Amino acid sequence: MHQSIQQSFSVPFQYQIHFTEHIFSTDNVLFANIVRGSRLPKVYFVVDQGVADCHPRLTDQLQAYAKAHQDALSLCGAPLIVPGGEQIKNDHTYFQHILDVVDQLGIDRHSYIVAIGGGALLDMVGMAAAIAHRGVRHIRIPTTVLSQNDSGIGVKNSINAYDKKNFLGTFAPPFAVINDTAFLHTLDDRDWRAGMAEAIKVALIKDADFFYWMEEQAPVLAARGMAPMQHLIYRCAQLHLDHIAGGDPFEMGSSRPLDFGHWAAHKLEQLTQYQLRHGEAVAIGIALDVTYAYRQNMITAQAHQRVISLLHHLGFTLYVPELSQPEVIDGLAEFREHLGGQLTIMLLHDIGQGVEVHTMDEAVIREAVAQLEKMHQGQNTHGHSTDVTL
Amino acid sequence: MHQSIQQSFSVPFQYQIHFTEHIFSTDNVLFANIVRGSRLPKVYFVVDQGVADCHPRLTDQLQAYAKAHQDALSLCGAPLIVPGGEQIKNDHTYFQHILDVVDQLGIDRHSYIVAIGGGALLDMVGMAAAIAHRGVRHIRIPTTVLSQNDSGIGVKNSINAYDKKNFLGTFAPPFAVINDTAFLHTLDDRDWRAGMAEAIKVALIKDADFFYWMEEQAPVLAARGMAPMQHLIYRCAQLHLDHIAGGDPFEMGSSRPLDFGHWAAHKLEQLTQYQLRHGEAVAIGIALDVTYAYRQNMITAQAHQRVISLLHHLGFTLYVPELSQPEVIDGLAEFREHLGGQLTIMLLHDIGQGVEVHTMDEAVIREAVAQLEKMHQGQNTHGHSTDVTL
Repeated sequence: MHQSIQQSFSVPFQYQIHFTEHIFSTDNVLFANIVRGSRLPKVYFVVDQGVADCHPRLTDQLQAYAKAHQDALSLCGAPLIVPGGEQIKNDHTYFQHILDVVDQLGIDRHSYIVAIGGGALLDMVGMAAAIAHRGVRHIRIPTTVLSQNDSGIGVKNSINAYDKKNFLGTFAPPFAVINDTAFLHTLDDRDWRAGMAEAIKVALIKDADFFYWMEEQAPVLAARGMAPMQHLIYRCAQLHLDHIAGGDPFEMGSSRPLDFGHWAAHKLEQLTQYQLRHGEAVAIGIALDVTYAYRQNMITAQAHQRVISLLHHLGFTLYVPELSQPEVIDGLAEFREHLGGQLTIMLLHDIGQGVEVHTMDEAVIREAVAQLEKMHQGQNTHGHSTDVTL
Repeated sequence: MHQSIQQSFSVPFQYQIHFTEHIFSTDNVLFANIVRGSRLPKVYFVVDQGVADCHPRLTDQLQAYAKAHQDALSLCGAPLIVPGGEQIKNDHTYFQHILDVVDQLGIDRHSYIVAIGGGALLDMVGMAAAIAHRGVRHIRIPTTVLSQNDSGIGVKNSINAYDKKNFLGTFAPPFAVINDTAFLHTLDDRDWRAGMAEAIKVALIKDADFFYWMEEQAPVLAARGMAPMQHLIYRCAQLHLDHIAGGDPFEMGSSRPLDFGHWAAHKLEQLTQYQLRHGEAVAIGIALDVTYAYRQNMITAQAHQRVISLLHHLGFTLYVPELSQPEVIDGLAEFREHLGGQLTIMLLHDIGQGVEVHTMDEAVIREAVAQLEKMHQGQNTHGHSTDVTL
C-alpha cells in the first residue's frame, strides 16, 4: 500500500515601505492610517536607546500622538527603551522581555509591535513578534541608513546564538515599514557612512548607473548632504525589494545574490566582537571580493580601481588586522552552512553585473587580503587617514 | 515629502503526504528517495520515547536503513529519544537541546531533522527546525491517529509558554510527511480513539457523507479495525489539506474554521493539566458546541442526537468535572486573543455544514454544560460506562 497527496499552495504577502519625515508629529496622519482598522488596535513601541538619547522628546511624542489619534490606536504599555547594536541580538534578555509583554498586555495577532531603531534592534523585535502567537503584526521604523535601505525593509528577522550571527530567525514580512528622514540627521558619522556600503553592493551587482551616480555624488554624500542620501536610500531599497519579490523571498535555494561581500563581512563582525558595524564590514567584504575578482581576471583593473576609489571617497576603511586572521576563511564554510546546499558566492563580471561562483581559491583570497593591507598601509603613510578607529 | 513602495509577492509551498507501511524496512525506498539530492544530506532523528518503547528495534532499524541507503543519506548523530506528550512543549529543555545539536553537528538548511512521534513532539521539533538557520528541512513521521490525520500534516508548529498552549510558534510547511500504518498497531486505546475526534470535526463542518460513513463504521472503528481507520485517516487528512490550500494557510485573518470545538478543548486540556488528550478534549468541545447550537435552534434535535451518539459509539467521554469550572468560559477570550481580531467561532447549521458566529451566549454555554453533565450521569447510571479515567 502506498498512496500520496501532493499539497501545493501559494501564500501572498504584501506590505508598504513609506518614505516620510516626522512620522510622529501629531499632524502626520500616516501612522494612524496604517494601523486603523475595524477594531481599535493595541500598539506597543520598542525604541533603541541611541535613538531615544538623540531624540529625548520621542517617548512624549509617541504618547501625544496616540492621544491625538485615539480613534485609530490605543497605546499599550509605556514604550520600552532597549540598548541597540548587535549586543541586543546576542543577549536574549530583551527578546524574552518582549515575549513577556505580549503575554502580560494581551497583545494579539491583530495588535502591533512597532520597533524604532537600527537593524539589530529591528531584527530582534521582529523575531519576537514573528513567533509570539505565530506572528503579531510588526511595523519597522528603521533609523539608520543601513536599516532604511536594506535590512529593515526585507522579510528576515533573527537573533544570534552559539556565537553565530542570525542562528535563530524566521522569514516573516513586516506589516509596514516607515523610513523617516528625520532620524538620519542625528546619526553619528559611522552610521551615516556604513549604510552606503549596501547601496554600493546592490549597484555593483545590479545597476551600473546607480554606481556611477554615487561616484558623482560621493563628495556630497560624504559631507552629509541629505538630498542625495534620500535618493540613495530610495533607490537602494527599491533594488532590494525588486530582488526579493522577483527571486526566492524565503531562500529555499542555496543562492543569496544580495549577500555580495557578506561572507567575509559576517566573519569580520564576529572577529571584531561587533566593534565593526555591519556596513563597515560589508565595505571591507566588497573590497576583498572585488580584489579577488580582479586577481582572478573576472573584472578589469579599471573597474577594480573605481570600486576601491568610491569606497575610499565615502570614507570607508578597507582593512582591519582581523582580516589577516586565518579564521576569516572559515567565513566561507559558515556562509555555506547557514544557507545549506552548495557554496554559492556572488562575485562580479563588471560594474552592475554580478556572477555566482561555487568555489573560491583560498590562496587568492590571501593574496587579496595582502593587497588590501598594502593599500591601507600606503594610504596611511601618504596621510589619507580614515576616521574609523576600532 | 511622502513616497511609498508597495511590495507584493507570493511564496509557493509544496510538500507530499505519503501513506505507507514499514517506512524503515531496508527494502522500502520511499524515505531514501525523499531525501536524496545532489549532495549527500545529513539526517538527524528525534524519536518519541513512547514509540521507541513500543518499537524497541526502531533505533537499530534507523541505523540499518541509513547503512543500506548510504548513497542517499548520512545519519547524523545517534537518534535522540525524548519523552512525548504535551510536557515536551511546556518544558523547553529538549527544544533547546535540538538547537544545540543543530549547532554542534553542523545541520544546515539542506539537512533533515526527522521527528517520529505524536503531535506534541512533532510540534516541538518542527518549531526548532523552523527557527534554526531560519528553517532546516523537517520531515514529520506522525505515529498517532490525531497526528496522522490532522496536526502532523499541516503547516503549524509550536511550543507552549506562559501556561498558554502554542504561545510560541511559526507557520512553516514540512518538507514531507510520512504516515506509516505500522505505528497505529501499538497505540493504546485512548490514542487510537482520540484522533477520530478530528475526523468527526472536519466531517461535521465539511462533509456529511464522511460523517455518515463513520456512523456505519463506528463498531469496526471502535474495535480497532485497521482498514476503516486507514480510510478515516486518509479522508480526514485530505479534507484538512484541501482546507489549508484553499483558505488562509498562514491565518492572516481572524477565522479558523478547522478549530470547530476547539475553544473549549484547549481550555480543558489546560484545566486538566493535559491529562486529557487533545482529541479527547476536542470530542467534549464538539459535544459542547453541538449542544449549544441545538439549544440556539441552529441544528435539529435529530442532528444533535446523531453527533452525540457517534461520539458515544466511538467510546468518547463527553463530560469531565473541569467542564463545569467557570474558567472554561475564559477559553473563548483566549481563543480570540490567540488569533487576534474579532471573535470567530465555527458552529453548525447541519451535519456537514459549518457556520461562523461572532458571539456566544454564556448563559446558553452553561446550560449546554449542564446538559452534557446530566447525559453523562444518566449514561453512567445506566451502566454504559466509558473507559477513560482521568
